[in-house]
This record gives sequence, structure tokens and C-alpha cells, in this order.
Amino acid sequence: MNEDLIYNAVGRLVPSEINGEPVVPFMGVGKYRPEGKKHASAIPTNADYPADGNKQVASLKEALIKAGLKDGMTISTHHHFRDGDLVANMVFDVVKELGVKDIRWYPSASFPCHAHLIPYLEDGTISHIEGSMNGPLGRFCSDGKMKKTAVLRSHGGRYQAVQDGEVKIDIAVIGAACADPFGNANGLNGPSSSGLLGFALADSQYANNVIVVTDNMVPFPCVPWQIQGNHVDYTVEVEKIGIPEKIVSGTTQITKSPDRLLIAEMTAKFCEATGIIHDGFSFQAGAGGTALSIGIYFGEIMRRKGIKARFARGGSNKYLVEMLEEGLVEYILDGQTFDLEGVRSMRDNPNHTWTSPFTSYNYHSKGNFAGLVDVVILGATEVDVNFNANVVTHSDGKLLHGLGGWQNCLFSKTVILPIPLFRDRIPVIVDEVTTLCGPGELIDVIVTERGIAINPLRKDLIEKAKDSGLPIRTIEEMKEEAERICGKPKKPVFTDKIIAAIKWVDGTVIDVVRQVDEKKTEN
Amino acid sequence: MNEDLIYNAVGRLVPSEINGEPVVPFMGVGKYRPEGKKHASAIPTNADYPADGNKQVASLKEALIKAGLKDGMTISTHHHFRDGDLVANMVFDVVKELGVKDIRWYPSASFPCHAHLIPYLEDGTISHIEGSMNGPLGRFCSDGKMKKTAVLRSHGGRYQAVQDGEVKIDIAVIGAACADPFGNANGLNGPSSSGLLGFALADSQYANNVIVVTDNMVPFPCVPWQIQGNHVDYTVEVEKIGIPEKIVSGTTQITKSPDRLLIAEMTAKFCEATGIIHDGFSFQAGAGGTALSIGIYFGEIMRRKGIKARFARGGSNKYLVEMLEEGLVEYILDGQTFDLEGVRSMRDNPNHTWTSPFTSYNYHSKGNFAGLVDVVILGATEVDVNFNANVVTHSDGKLLHGLGGWQNCLFSKTVILPIPLFRDRIPVIVDEVTTLCGPGELIDVIVTERGIAINPLRKDLIEKAKDSGLPIRTIEEMKEEAERICGKPKKPVFTDKIIAAIKWVDGTVIDVVRQVDEKKTEN
Repeated sequence: MNEDLIYNAVGRLVPSEINGEPVVPFMGVGKYRPEGKKHASAIPTNADYPADGNKQVASLKEALIKAGLKDGMTISTHHHFRDGDLVANMVFDVVKELGVKDIRWYPSASFPCHAHLIPYLEDGTISHIEGSMNGPLGRFCSDGKMKKTAVLRSHGGRYQAVQDGEVKIDIAVIGAACADPFGNANGLNGPSSSGLLGFALADSQYANNVIVVTDNMVPFPCVPWQIQGNHVDYTVEVEKIGIPEKIVSGTTQITKSPDRLLIAEMTAKFCEATGIIHDGFSFQAGAGGTALSIGIYFGEIMRRKGIKARFARGGSNKYLVEMLEEGLVEYILDGQTFDLEGVRSMRDNPNHTWTSPFTSYNYHSKGNFAGLVDVVILGATEVDVNFNANVVTHSDGKLLHGLGGWQNCLFSKTVILPIPLFRDRIPVIVDEVTTLCGPGELIDVIVTERGIAINPLRKDLIEKAKDSGLPIRTIEEMKEEAERICGKPKKPVFTDKIIAAIKWVDGTVIDVVRQVDEKKTEN
Repeated sequence: MNEDLIYNAVGRLVPSEINGEPVVPFMGVGKYRPEGKKHASAIPTNADYPADGNKQVASLKEALIKAGLKDGMTISTHHHFRDGDLVANMVFDVVKELGVKDIRWYPSASFPCHAHLIPYLEDGTISHIEGSMNGPLGRFCSDGKMKKTAVLRSHGGRYQAVQDGEVKIDIAVIGAACADPFGNANGLNGPSSSGLLGFALADSQYANNVIVVTDNMVPFPCVPWQIQGNHVDYTVEVEKIGIPEKIVSGTTQITKSPDRLLIAEMTAKFCEATGIIHDGFSFQAGAGGTALSIGIYFGEIMRRKGIKARFARGGSNKYLVEMLEEGLVEYILDGQTFDLEGVRSMRDNPNHTWTSPFTSYNYHSKGNFAGLVDVVILGATEVDVNFNANVVTHSDGKLLHGLGGWQNCLFSKTVILPIPLFRDRIPVIVDEVTTLCGPGELIDVIVTERGIAINPLRKDLIEKAKDSGLPIRTIEEMKEEAERICGKPKKPVFTDKIIAAIKWVDGTVIDVVRQVDEKKTEN
């Protein structure tokens, strides 16, 4: 594959095919025009389904066999249960038992709990993963051990790939906290409640075969139906699909680090000074320690000014729920709940609305919600002097994170990355990011504990922040300061082997990740 | 067209093409197997839509022009506002003003208020209607005045036709009680509230261009979004889209006719005697006077027996809402609200859930809700001795009603038609129905004021009703009794001209309606 590389619009050398399929190199934001039609699945008929609507079968094994499981298929699963997921492991235990090989696994994300699947990657049961990899599977992939090339997509990009027929799912297995025998399902009610099932929406709509697995089967109707049973082929009840304490931690913590608190405070002050926080504004913060603190500062500003936000985008957590209940926020439009308060609020409060990657993030759509958000607060592992950012690889070059909704959120009106100037004495602002996940033109502001850099493209923000008293600096100045303190960071050395492709929101390839050359990389 | 007629599986002579398009004759219940794929629309890109999500344009005219309105297109509208609709008339006033011709109008239903469009049918602005016609437009069509052949589909059949690409909609215009500039919309909040927008779902998902028109534009987000703005191209605010008092009458009336009350009581007694009413059962009654009374009798039986229904299917009304609030019914799964109490309940009670023709009725799906309903109560203009029924033509042969969800509901576990033995001294049970809308094999029980006929196919019900003390008779006996009292009814005489085709739920042609030969028909 590596013989046929081309430079894409952000100067990254990317292949023109991946795993034997042609791909389009990134052409610039908004430049690629999709041709063709959405993926169309075969027209089903009620005549092929039980007249009484009862699609329940005895076991996951039976469902997978009925779904026609065979070598080379694509199986999708979802990360609603995060590190408490039992479903994907269960699925591949059956695949292994049946001796089926070469499965493309298409999870919405994988977590450390899925290290259970490493033997299946080693023995050829799973050929490769297309989906975010957090932790051990990312390391496995980074070490060049995966049979084929991984493909990473954002939440919106995953929906786009399925909608556009770029990834055709043979069997989708959807774990749900609550379901009925017809296949209606939600993530709200039951011991494994996760809030919502949005990451499985595309799969339910477009996969050839859809299996719903639950540990809480209720009589029809399962209300609300976040997944519509009309898309579902088989339903299965099992004893346990998730480990509750790992699904929603219940322990979302505000940062206690003085540096992080300073970053949070400066971010909030910046948003106040520039008028981003105004009556009826909207924001998306997130669930990290710094982001939580920013949300709390936002609340303080709104209270003081006597204004409220029209909506906040979740990932929701108890602090955001408190703001909703206090009336500081009119609506939470939520993509995933990060704690049990989020689940409770989503279940009980009609103004805490569930969304999906379709409504919020799909770029091959007639617009999406991301563009309507006034300000979004995101993280990054690295940012470069052109404001390009990386979220998937660490400074050691290893692929240890997924894209999540990060790329999708870059389309918000103002994108702020509050980041420390260095982590473990390694500068975060660099000359060039190891992996380019988001182009600098979409990233507006970098807030660090030692200053704020505004993208020169945002003349309006530069003008508004001018007299704010905030420490506005150039990004080069901040990079130099970090290097003065920590020294210029050593860069990992890579082999030629591409171990993962990073897709942009429109399905084009924005970058790749290569295997680290351990021998040549200084430690 | 008439030269190429074939007998379909219920012995009706139907054409093999309609308006130049090939059609499949009805092959029997569950016999037709669809081939091919669902309709796939062109992949859109966010890059073609406003970055800030604001899709509002100044007028409906501007929206229609931007949507590329031209001769021969298909425009769809919806009947959520019933006889209080102002939207369809507004749309065709613009079409006429722009001099565009030969539009296929694809409403989910039309009402007397749409008589406004008759001049447009006469002058060629509208070539023909594919959709239910209640009243004047049906009469216009019946009189052979429409340029092309009408096509009538059930609610589920309409979804199926759009999903399967049988009807490709160029421009869908969706009137909504509440919307935001992005295009999210619902039928719940605003002066023209109608409850829900389910009839427009297929159109929003599959039409090339989607326009949302509202008289209540709210800032993003319009919550809940029954129509997702991600499917919408343009939004328009106008002064008034509906006449509230004609949208939901607020005057649902229980029948006062002693005969109808007797029919209602006998229907309820039959359901009790045969065990159809049991703890956790489900039913769909409807909003006619007799049906309302049946619902009330059902409530009395449940109270007396100390049981409750798992769910009731709406059309909802204040009596059904009372049963929900009393706890006699756990869930209302609602397709349309027939009064303001229905709207209120749907807005405020999470157990009053909105459904769509997709969830409830689409036959080209992996099952639908209709099959899960224990008993459904439906009407008919005629029933024949083979239990076939007609709902679209009157005894005079005129096409005056639409199919609604009637055909779709025939898939419920037990279908009961409570009907008077005669109307205006014309027997309702006949040798052969004028128009065959539903095959007898799906119709289980006919309840009249002079006896109950059970379809011989339902041996189980015959057995269970045996000792009930209810007047169980054969359908032939009841037909003869009616004829003894009223005389054998005169039949209308038809010309050869086919003025409308009646589709079955799978898109095949179950029957046609021919023009009445006024001269040969005795009055």
C-alpha cells in the first residue's frame, strides 16, 4: 500500500487505498463533494418476520447463526457501556467458538475491557478494527500487530461512513439497558442504563442484520424507543450486558490542579470578555476535570449577569444537570451521559433531550447541530503553531485515543482548546503535530496557564479580547516559553508501516499513524 | 390502459400499468416479495447549507423556487391539520402563480377545505392526486374529471411507496405547529398544534427537497423534534398555517343512537366473552361515535375485572386519555390526536407516545406495531359474504373516503368491524363489495345490531363465543335479514374508465375504482 502515497491538502502523506479499498485524500474543509447516493439496504417485508412481533431467540449464538455469520463479515458494536461493556466480548467469544475468521470489527469505540479480544486479533478471528481504540487495543495496533490497517472516524464520520455505504455492516449487535421482544430499545431503564443509544443509530438503520441484546427485556412497548424495533431482526435476553459501576462512573471530578483551575478560569473570562457568553448563547464543555470547571465558571458568570443559555450540548454530568434544573440552561442536547445524574435527568426531564451522531455530527447531511453551538471546549494531546491539533497519538507516537466527537465539534462557532503548556515536562504546543486530526483553520483559541493564543484568522476575537486584560500572546511565544522551560521535545521515529488511517468528517483521509520504530526512538 | 387488464388474487380486474408506470397486481396476503433496495437519495453535504444552521427564507414562494420547482414534479403535503389545513392551498397558489404545470400532488390525505384546488386540477396545474380524498376532491375524481388516475394508499402504504422509491418526492412541504430555523419541527406547540407530524416522516427522510412551514418559529432547538432538521432544506414562517377549531374538533362525541350503542355493547361483550380482554391486552378503537363507546365499555370491563391494558393505539381522544390517566391503560401509542385533550396528553405525558406510519404500519419493514395489537375496531362502507370489506366507495359507487390506516390495522390479531346492518335503508352486507380494500381472510368478526358473524377461518373465536349467549349468526343470514327488510340494493353501473387504483400495503394493486355511468345507474 505504501508505494502509492500522495500529499493531501494539509501536507500529510496518505495512501490512495486502505485495506484494498480506494480512499480520497483530505481536500480541505468543505472542499470534498460527495457523489452518489446514500446506502440503500434491501427492502424487507413483514411477511418474513413473526406475525406477532416476537423476535426473541434463545441466545446470542442462535441470533448470530440466524443472521448468517460467516468469514469476512463486518460486525458492529457500541460503546455505550464504555469500560463496563460485556457485549462485544460476548459476541466474539461466539465468533471464536464457531470458528469464523477475518471479521472486521466496527465498534463505535473500544476500551481497556476489550483487551479480552487481543487473542482474537492474534489468531485471525478479527482481522482488524475500524473504530476508536482507547488503551490496550490502540497499543496493540500501534505495535504493528494488527493484520490490516485500522481506520479511525469521529462519531459523525462513523455515521457518515455507514450512511454513505463506505462501511457496510453485515451484523450490528446493539446492547441495550432495556428492550422489548420486538426490538424497541433504550439505554434509560435497567441495571445497565447508559442514558442513550445514539451511537448505534446508523447501524440499526443501515445494517443488513440487527440484533438487540438486553438484560432487561420488558413487554412491548419499550418506551421510549431510542432504537426502533422495526429495524431489528432478532432480540436476545442475557444475564448481564454491562458492569454498572464502569458504565457511568458516578465520580465525575472537578480538577483540583491549580494550573488547570487557572486555565478554566481564563477560558471562562475570555468567553465573557469577548461576548461569547450572552443571553441565549450555547456551549459544549465536556466531562474532563478542566471542562467541568469551565462549566461551573460559566454558571457563575450567567448568574452574575442574570442571563441564561438557550442550550448546552452534553456529554452530560451532574454539574450540567444542576444548571438545567436551576434554569441557567434551557435545554441539554445530549449525546452521552457521563454519570447517573445525567441518566436520571435524561429519563425524567423532557428538556434534557437525547441526540444522535445523525442530528449532531453527520457532515453528509443538510447541516447538523454542531454548527449552531456558540462555543465548544475541547482537548488535545498536541497543538502546533498553525493551530492544527492532535487527539489520537501521544508524544511517544502511540495511538492511544479515539476521535470521539472532537472533529465534529470543530464546526462550532468558536472552538477553544484549554490545554496545559506541558504535560510531564513535555511541551504540548509543537512545531508540527504528530498526527493531524483537526485543521488549524477550525481551531480558534488556545488557552494555557501561561497565556491565550487566538488564531490570526479570528480578527474579531483578537479585537474583542484586546482590552480584556487577559494575557493574549502568539502561539509561537507560548511554544518558545514551553521549550525554554522543558527543552525541545524529542520526537518519536516511525517506520514506513501505516497502522491506522484518520478519517476527516467527510470520509477523506486527513492523516495516518505509522508504527513507531522502537529502536530508533530515544527513550 | 384498460386494454391490458388482469385478474388479481382476489379476482379483481386491474391494470398492469397506471399513469404509464408498471404496477404489480395483488398476489395474496404476504405473497408479494419485494426485490431491490430502498430508495436512496443523493448524499448531501453540510458544505451546501448555512454554517450557522439558519435555513429560514422569506417566503414559501422563495423556498419553492430555491427547491427548483418545475413542471411535472411531485409535491407532497400532509393532513395533520385535517379540514383546517391552509398549507396545501398556499403551496398550489404559488405553483399557479409561477405558471408551473402538471404537478403530481402526493398528500397524505385531502379534505373538503382542499376544494380550493379544483380549479388547479381543471387548468392542469395539478395533473392528479395520489392520496386519500375525503369529499369534494373524491367526487371530482369519481366524475372522471382528473387528468390522470388517482392512486390511494394506506398510511403504511404511503410510507412504503416512498421508502421503496415507488413515489419519488421532489418537494415535500411540511406544515408544523412549531419549528426552528434549522428545520426541527413538531406538531405539539403553537396555535396550529395537531399533536404529531408522523405522516410527514417518510417525506422528510426521502424527498429531494424538504420545506418546513410554520406559524410559530422558535429559536433552536425546537424540542421535541418530531421532524429532524437535518433532513430539511428550507424553513419559512407564515402568518397562519391552520384553522385551530378545524384541526382538532374538541367535540368528539359518543354515539347517542340506540342501535350504535347496542353494537358497541355487543362488541365489548364479545371481546370479554372470548378472552380478548385480558390483563395486559392491547386495543385500537378509533374516534368514531361507535368506536368511542366501545372504548368506554372496554374501560368498564377492565375496572370490573381489575385488569389493565398494556397499551392502546390512538387516534387518541379525551376518553382514551382519561383511561391512561386512570391507569387502565399503561401506554398510548398514538398516530394522531383527535382532540385537544389528546394534544395535551401527548405533550405532557411520556406514556402517551407518538408513533409514525414507519413504526406502526410500514409493511416493507422488519415487522410493525399493527401485528402486536390484540384487537382492532374498524369501520367499513360495505362488507361482503366473504368478509371482504370496502372503505373508500359508497353504495352509489362514488369515491368519497380515503384508506387511512385501515388496511394496515387488518394485521392485528383480531379485527372486528362493528357496523349497522343497513344505512339509509341500504344493506351494508352485500354479495360482493363495490371496491375491495381488505381481503376477508384478515377480517375476523362483523358485529351488527342484529347479530355477530365470525369468519369461519377463526375456529378459535367460534369455539370461545359458543356459550356466550351472544347472537352469533352466519354472515349470509345477516345479509338475508337486511335484504328482507330493505330489499336487495341496486348496484351502480360503471363505465370502463378507471379513475383510481387502490394499493395494498405491499404496493400491489388490490382493486380499482371506475367512473359511475350516471345514465345507466338507476337513482
